[in-house]
Amino acid sequence: MTTSNEVLDVLREISHPEIKRNLVELGMIKDVAIENDGAKVILALPYKGIPIGDRLKREVREAIKGIDPNLKVNLVVVEMSQKERAVFMSEADGGPKTAQLQNKIGNVIAVLSGKGGVGKSSVASLLAVALSRQKKRVGVLDADITGPSIPKMFGLTKPPMMSESGILPVETKMGIKIMSINLLLPGEDEAVIWRGPRISGAIKQFWQDVHWGELDYLIVDLPPGTSDASLTVMQSIPLGGIVLVTSPQDLAGMVVRKAAGMARHLGAPILGMVENMSHVTCPKCGMRILVFGPSRSAATAQQLFVPLLGQLPLDPLLAEKCDAGEIETYQTDEFLPIAEAIVNRIAKPATAGTSEQ
Amino acid sequence: MTTSNEVLDVLREISHPEIKRNLVELGMIKDVAIENDGAKVILALPYKGIPIGDRLKREVREAIKGIDPNLKVNLVVVEMSQKERAVFMSEADGGPKTAQLQNKIGNVIAVLSGKGGVGKSSVASLLAVALSRQKKRVGVLDADITGPSIPKMFGLTKPPMMSESGILPVETKMGIKIMSINLLLPGEDEAVIWRGPRISGAIKQFWQDVHWGELDYLIVDLPPGTSDASLTVMQSIPLGGIVLVTSPQDLAGMVVRKAAGMARHLGAPILGMVENMSHVTCPKCGMRILVFGPSRSAATAQQLFVPLLGQLPLDPLLAEKCDAGEIETYQTDEFLPIAEAIVNRIAKPATAGTSEQ
Repeated sequence: MTTSNEVLDVLREISHPEIKRNLVELGMIKDVAIENDGAKVILALPYKGIPIGDRLKREVREAIKGIDPNLKVNLVVVEMSQKERAVFMSEADGGPKTAQLQNKIGNVIAVLSGKGGVGKSSVASLLAVALSRQKKRVGVLDADITGPSIPKMFGLTKPPMMSESGILPVETKMGIKIMSINLLLPGEDEAVIWRGPRISGAIKQFWQDVHWGELDYLIVDLPPGTSDASLTVMQSIPLGGIVLVTSPQDLAGMVVRKAAGMARHLGAPILGMVENMSHVTCPKCGMRILVFGPSRSAATAQQLFVPLLGQLPLDPLLAEKCDAGEIETYQTDEFLPIAEAIVNRIAKPATAGTSEQ
Repeated sequence: MTTSNEVLDVLREISHPEIKRNLVELGMIKDVAIENDGAKVILALPYKGIPIGDRLKREVREAIKGIDPNLKVNLVVVEMSQKERAVFMSEADGGPKTAQLQNKIGNVIAVLSGKGGVGKSSVASLLAVALSRQKKRVGVLDADITGPSIPKMFGLTKPPMMSESGILPVETKMGIKIMSINLLLPGEDEAVIWRGPRISGAIKQFWQDVHWGELDYLIVDLPPGTSDASLTVMQSIPLGGIVLVTSPQDLAGMVVRKAAGMARHLGAPILGMVENMSHVTCPKCGMRILVFGPSRSAATAQQLFVPLLGQLPLDPLLAEKCDAGEIETYQTDEFLPIAEAIVNRIAKPATAGTSEQ
């Protein structure tokens, strides 16, 4: 009787023709089981329908038939989840780096919008502050390489130190660990005029070569757009989930819907949507002014089948706190339930993968 | 006595070693003059100090000495202006395309911010509308490939037509010619998940393969960031000038200063800066609320040595008009002097180029 270990052993001899490492090492064999009528193997492909899939399926069948030609092979092909794919990509890229191996990061939450100026960085920072106040160990990876806002909001200016195990993130007053390109530039106004590959390289370095240590949550602040930076984050970093940020305008909603489409396409689970800049309260007469017109974000959330986690007002005090580098002293009761909802939703395992006999 | 035509003829025999076309064709010989003591040649390099410069200088000297070994050669090296460089790049890239050859575009104005969500697209559209109301022929090239807002603001949904001479831009009610990736997508919410080279390719196509016809002004709406899209526009399209858009926050100002640094680095003349979202007027009590805190843009403009062309309020009506696709019916007296200042400043020739004996 053939055992599942024997099957695993022959599968270890199948090398991915491009990556030159075996399927088991690459995490492509999700499960092997011996059932009544034969061997059941779950093969995970990074994307459905990739050209190499047929070749790998054939090789898996042939390898198992090599043990026992009479053994039935039940080959189930699934698509990797975003997390599995990020690990696969890292293995394909030579395996994790020194710093990465030492990091223990509970959950990565990416803050995405597609649209600029809706307050991704504010939401990312407020989330980090809210979690830190709850005694969680938190880091912020600023993936906006050409328009980084995070260090200024936290009042950070000194460059990160180097250690044997990698670049050490800079810590805020509260102890939030920050890595951003602006900490590495000679001046905060310095332009970073890079094409895509260098942008991607910097983001990968922030993930692989930064000694984050032990974190409960790493918040990734994404730049606007659905090009290199967002692609690299969604392909290289195993995400616990994505928080979408929008403003009341449908013009913003349209671009956010594009970004949500990208997240879906890459299998990254969306935790929910936050509407920012919902209204301004007149300090004199108390009127709620809908500065960006009536809100369309409930409709957008419904259209995307994601929960609207909350609505935040446009608060001049927040703008001033950000300019002064004092976001950690900004008190907001509105954000607490949003942070809780995000954390609660991350606990639920995301559904991913489609199967094929 | 040697003539300047003889000198030009020998310079036509010097081929750029990488581009394989001669220096005169490539626009690298800005002037040739016979003076008392010899031949004066002005050689324009795309960038100062490029490695090939020394080789070209030597070849120019040798070619002229070949006519008459006793002729003194006064070789002045200058750096190309942004406009000259864009033409050079186009020649290096095989020369202008069919559509491009038929287009007659008076001035190209790029609207840049670096920062997202400060209202680049609104400013670009309001500028187009203001110029169109003054009976100018205007086009808008939407260079924001991943977050295009222009078609929605003008209420355009139908795809562009093709003609023998290229892609025909879609016209608005007022007759403004628009080209945007969102006119080419099956739905406006569709994500464009492209890395840099494809983004650049699309922008180049919008410039080279679109039959703009005769325009007084082409407004280019740039995306946030200082990566591929902005780089491609500044390298490939000869710009009359750049309008910077910022918001009152210094956090926005910081990113705008990065973008200004990029424009300077690439030699693109900055016409001035517009502050958007300066304040909101309470519709009930008339209070001016500084929603993004007190304005820092005057300081930023001074720091960058560019004029602050005007300040625009945050107007809920504009947000609604944009969502409804009716920006052309939005009446704003505040924008008229800004549009006039932009046009007046473009008339002044920009200073560019440094010389070296």
